[in-house]
Amino acid sequence: MTGTFRIALAGLGHVGGGVAQILLTRGQELAQRAGRKLQLVAVCARDRAKPRRTDISHLPWIEEPVSLAQTNADLVVEVIGGQGQPALGLIEASLQAQKAVVTANKALLAYHGARLAALAEKEGVPLRFEAAAAGGIPIVKGLRQSLITYGIDAIRGILNGTCNYILTQMEATGRSFAEVLAEAQARGFAEADPELDVGGGDTAHKLALLSALAFGVPPDMEAIRIQGIRHISRADIAFAKEFSYRIKLLGIARKTPSGLDQRVQPALVRLGTPLADVDSVFNAVVAHAGAAGPFTFEGRGAGEEPTTSAVISDIVDIARGESGPAFGRPAKDLHSLPAAPPEAHPCPHYLRFDVRDLPGVLAEIAGHLARENVSIESMIQRGRRPGEPVAIVMVTHHCPETNVMRALEAINASDMVLGPPCMIPIEAS
Amino acid sequence: MTGTFRIALAGLGHVGGGVAQILLTRGQELAQRAGRKLQLVAVCARDRAKPRRTDISHLPWIEEPVSLAQTNADLVVEVIGGQGQPALGLIEASLQAQKAVVTANKALLAYHGARLAALAEKEGVPLRFEAAAAGGIPIVKGLRQSLITYGIDAIRGILNGTCNYILTQMEATGRSFAEVLAEAQARGFAEADPELDVGGGDTAHKLALLSALAFGVPPDMEAIRIQGIRHISRADIAFAKEFSYRIKLLGIARKTPSGLDQRVQPALVRLGTPLADVDSVFNAVVAHAGAAGPFTFEGRGAGEEPTTSAVISDIVDIARGESGPAFGRPAKDLHSLPAAPPEAHPCPHYLRFDVRDLPGVLAEIAGHLARENVSIESMIQRGRRPGEPVAIVMVTHHCPETNVMRALEAINASDMVLGPPCMIPIEAS
Repeated sequence: MTGTFRIALAGLGHVGGGVAQILLTRGQELAQRAGRKLQLVAVCARDRAKPRRTDISHLPWIEEPVSLAQTNADLVVEVIGGQGQPALGLIEASLQAQKAVVTANKALLAYHGARLAALAEKEGVPLRFEAAAAGGIPIVKGLRQSLITYGIDAIRGILNGTCNYILTQMEATGRSFAEVLAEAQARGFAEADPELDVGGGDTAHKLALLSALAFGVPPDMEAIRIQGIRHISRADIAFAKEFSYRIKLLGIARKTPSGLDQRVQPALVRLGTPLADVDSVFNAVVAHAGAAGPFTFEGRGAGEEPTTSAVISDIVDIARGESGPAFGRPAKDLHSLPAAPPEAHPCPHYLRFDVRDLPGVLAEIAGHLARENVSIESMIQRGRRPGEPVAIVMVTHHCPETNVMRALEAINASDMVLGPPCMIPIEAS
Repeated sequence: MTGTFRIALAGLGHVGGGVAQILLTRGQELAQRAGRKLQLVAVCARDRAKPRRTDISHLPWIEEPVSLAQTNADLVVEVIGGQGQPALGLIEASLQAQKAVVTANKALLAYHGARLAALAEKEGVPLRFEAAAAGGIPIVKGLRQSLITYGIDAIRGILNGTCNYILTQMEATGRSFAEVLAEAQARGFAEADPELDVGGGDTAHKLALLSALAFGVPPDMEAIRIQGIRHISRADIAFAKEFSYRIKLLGIARKTPSGLDQRVQPALVRLGTPLADVDSVFNAVVAHAGAAGPFTFEGRGAGEEPTTSAVISDIVDIARGESGPAFGRPAKDLHSLPAAPPEAHPCPHYLRFDVRDLPGVLAEIAGHLARENVSIESMIQRGRRPGEPVAIVMVTHHCPETNVMRALEAINASDMVLGPPCMIPIEAS
């Protein structure tokens, strides 16, 4: 591992611009760490004329991303984004040309990760993606190289800063999801089309990668149950707090006796536990590493500098000679596990019913729950003014989700309830 | 990097026993990750006759640790402990024989780390020590390989599980340091001679290593100001809580305008911030990584499995071909920085005075503080029964430690105070 290490960069948005700036301004320190000089040899982006923060006019400009694979680069950085072309073609062509690849592209790897990992191995070059999950937090390396001794039982993460910002603001201001989302969009904290974030898809992309690293499965979006945060009301956030919980959108992957449970969903986490105190745009992951116990990693999960930090760390590792398979195990040893059925992970549930203020309502709800063996741990009834609906809020003891669902269906069929009941699982952390 | 990777193991205590067990029972999975088979080829410990959990009777037994350097091993694991012989001689001889070394020995590296790192580089073999700081938490790799892009401004860590257990128990039970220490000793959570833990020395060993990784300085115990937790009273813990703080023993290293500030000391950290919620035997490190922001790593910092986990991760990295200097930069590029004077980091301080219940006492204390430009942010006066001393407790605004010290000297010289005042800095986290 000697001689200058040549890097081609596809994408000059926030992250690509950050990567270019660091490579051009901190070369000496990075060379110390890599044991060799790093040199940016080609760049590619949509608009050559766009003003750039860092002067890149001296660098060879390539018009088509895929052509970066034909340069003399040792490594290609893909920070174009998007799960299809041109990013996918660029990564494939680069690996086929035996160039190492560093990407921040969670969506692309969630769908094509196993195949690209196999291609990288076949060609004998590393494929790295620290920036693709939880931004600057080194959880990819943590799962790939550090927490490997006793196996992983479960990972739980707050992986989407937009959702966490919205939920944090809803709690802090008492405003609705729609109001806070609109404000986040106005401030640039949420996309004009927020669905990928608030619908849970982005969290699922990241979870698919962390699952692969933790459990040796191929990344598989089809195996993940996905629920977003649109249905979370300010009332739920306030009631959760009364029970000493906070609502977070979690990506969860865990072994159960009947298979691997992978899901993205809002959950209640107890105040004072690591995930509950992760505020605003921060991300965090708790990994239960067998007998070594739980480990928590927290930090900024998005934004130019945290993402740049992760990309640069991958580049330096590869320049220094880091090798090994993308997901920690050879691609041929990644094997799907059976998907755990919903009842595989009994847990307490938070339930909210908006009901008519009539005699017998509570008895009827309690009866339906009892018939499904769902027992109540605590309850709040609140918010009644004459003629107004009443909110009945409960926390159950541990029970399978399927039992709760059946009880809710029966309750929902009654004309005493004024809207679909809200059910949110409670996660230990 | 092909062929079987041969490992020699010095030390068969809790950690050595754990390492042997993992190598002998999880060989297949580790081989997947390393890309080659790992084989334990020699072991060495004090007492060959001692019963072992894992059958190692088939392994070559070496009587003298230093002789492991003469085996056919590719890598020597040193988990004997102790900053002198035989551990030091074994590591030196192993590196000189061009064998990679993995050690959990914080004390030894805190004193000899720079020299051994240079020796390892000269011989062209890696020296790794993930287990030497914060046990199973991958903070060594995090600082060496992940948070490298924007530099580190500060690290703050809870690095000693014994101290954290004692402080957590003092708060939970309201008992004194001496009582909780005695109980911890009885339960095996504290050593018969607890001084290395409760005096802060163990935290300083670990801090010296993290400082080297974060700031590119040689590990230097002489540069660390060290204060332990013996003087922390239950009253201080209770008063801190009234001000919404918790007392933790922290290892701190940070850049200041006038040099590098390295210290081990009890500090107040605000409830709800990451370090405040680290309970019992857990460790945590917050690293402020420049523009990438703060990152928090939390997990078990000691014990067989977390430490074994860290040792195994180093072994697998090296077997896979991981190289590069021990402290992230070449040993010749490790340069000492000037030590920051005590006044370089102004911060708020917690102060407690036990005073006679006489008129004018508060005025006199306040006067001495005012003369040194120490201004009071909040105050509690409490605990007075007729004839009993009064505790006056204050939190100051930001001010240099030197000013507070001068004021306390003047106050202490007065006959109104009934013992030395207590001063504990308040750390942001």
